[in-house]
Amino acid sequence: MKFLAQLDKATDKNDSLLCIGLDVDLAKIPQNFLNTEDPIFNFNKTVIDATKQLVCAYKPNSAFYEMYGIYGLSALLRTIEYIHQETDVPVILDAKRGDVGHSSTAYAKSVFQVFKADATTVNPYMGHDSVRPFLEFEEKGVFILCLTSNVGFKDFQIKGVDEPLYKSVAKHVREWNHYGNCGLVVGATKAEELKSVRELAGDMPLLIPGVGAQGGDLEASVKHGTIKNGKRAVINASRSILYAADPYSEAKKLRDNINKFR
Amino acid sequence: MKFLAQLDKATDKNDSLLCIGLDVDLAKIPQNFLNTEDPIFNFNKTVIDATKQLVCAYKPNSAFYEMYGIYGLSALLRTIEYIHQETDVPVILDAKRGDVGHSSTAYAKSVFQVFKADATTVNPYMGHDSVRPFLEFEEKGVFILCLTSNVGFKDFQIKGVDEPLYKSVAKHVREWNHYGNCGLVVGATKAEELKSVRELAGDMPLLIPGVGAQGGDLEASVKHGTIKNGKRAVINASRSILYAADPYSEAKKLRDNINKFR
Repeated sequence: MKFLAQLDKATDKNDSLLCIGLDVDLAKIPQNFLNTEDPIFNFNKTVIDATKQLVCAYKPNSAFYEMYGIYGLSALLRTIEYIHQETDVPVILDAKRGDVGHSSTAYAKSVFQVFKADATTVNPYMGHDSVRPFLEFEEKGVFILCLTSNVGFKDFQIKGVDEPLYKSVAKHVREWNHYGNCGLVVGATKAEELKSVRELAGDMPLLIPGVGAQGGDLEASVKHGTIKNGKRAVINASRSILYAADPYSEAKKLRDNINKFR
Repeated sequence: MKFLAQLDKATDKNDSLLCIGLDVDLAKIPQNFLNTEDPIFNFNKTVIDATKQLVCAYKPNSAFYEMYGIYGLSALLRTIEYIHQETDVPVILDAKRGDVGHSSTAYAKSVFQVFKADATTVNPYMGHDSVRPFLEFEEKGVFILCLTSNVGFKDFQIKGVDEPLYKSVAKHVREWNHYGNCGLVVGATKAEELKSVRELAGDMPLLIPGVGAQGGDLEASVKHGTIKNGKRAVINASRSILYAADPYSEAKKLRDNINKFR
């Protein structure tokens, strides 16, 4: 099944736009997991078991697994396999890759074939031929960084001649979207700009991080992020759910808050 | 020892600006390596043994190891360890990472502490706080993408209000260079622009890919890439050396050609 169909299906089934970022930091997880043979996977498993009927996607960020070397990457493989086995929820591997053509092909093989993600994130700085190898996996989703949720967005993304760089990225991505598998990443901390990106993006899915610990605007993210049918906004929270005393309640609360604005 | 001192030392000792990109593709290496227990490492070892007195740096591109999953990454670890053990040549892990602050910190830990690279490449799209966690490893080198060697450089890197984006990146990097550990990536396919980047970059090292299979201008890369003492240009070739019938002769020829222009 194509990523977009998977995403819409999970959105409907779980009545949810919530995506949980599986960004495990061993320094923050409960002590009891550290005494098991595979702390990262076991922690993720608990979160997945508790939330799989509340989310439209899971988004592990590759950085947090690479930080633990071979062990971390093995736990990532096992985590994605478990999500596929136990749920119909798609997995967005947040990897922000991008390189010259043949290197991007190697990265695309890694995220889609080795790690078996349903979608990934890509950095547009190197232009179309750095993104194309990802897009050629027609069944997979490719979210291209547009306007990010961190403070450094000011350095380059809002600069430009006739329009800011992030709008130019959104327009290019529209051109690149031959297979209908593109999406854009837009931070929830940028409510007004999110509106203009949605106008440029048509029905593409938008991946919207920054509503949890980063304090983005939830109402604006939902209203400006979705399309007419109330879908296609993928609203990510990581730390605020993972490290809550009760991830199930926290995820349910956030899903329901999101739905109030749909 | 700081990266820049390591780089200068290897440049002097081996009288070389040549960097070899260790981008192993199992479909291209000689059949006899495939019959060993660790084909990627054994192939790299042969290349390293043959060229370690001819280069100023080695640059494995993470994509080609990630493509082979856990096995590939184990071979990458073993390769970097071998270079450190057998040579004084610094290792630039070409990973083109960049993410929001705490995720970039995780990536920096991965490349510098887990994989033990001496330097890495970073994508500037997300701005200063996405680059800073790498820079905080003061002993390590950080090459920021500026003007890349692929055709997609046209999409965004040369756009801008008062100046093209790549020049704005070069100027920002100059500001970010508090610890003297920054460098820039500029493709050898962009001879004129390389000159203007060198003017902006002061004495920073420039990593210059694209002289081999991509057909960049060698003379211009050396003349415009180096500083007054004839150093600080790191000229990378990958496929043209790795898959040559005799990597030693091919590397020696390229090193000597480079030196003609110094």
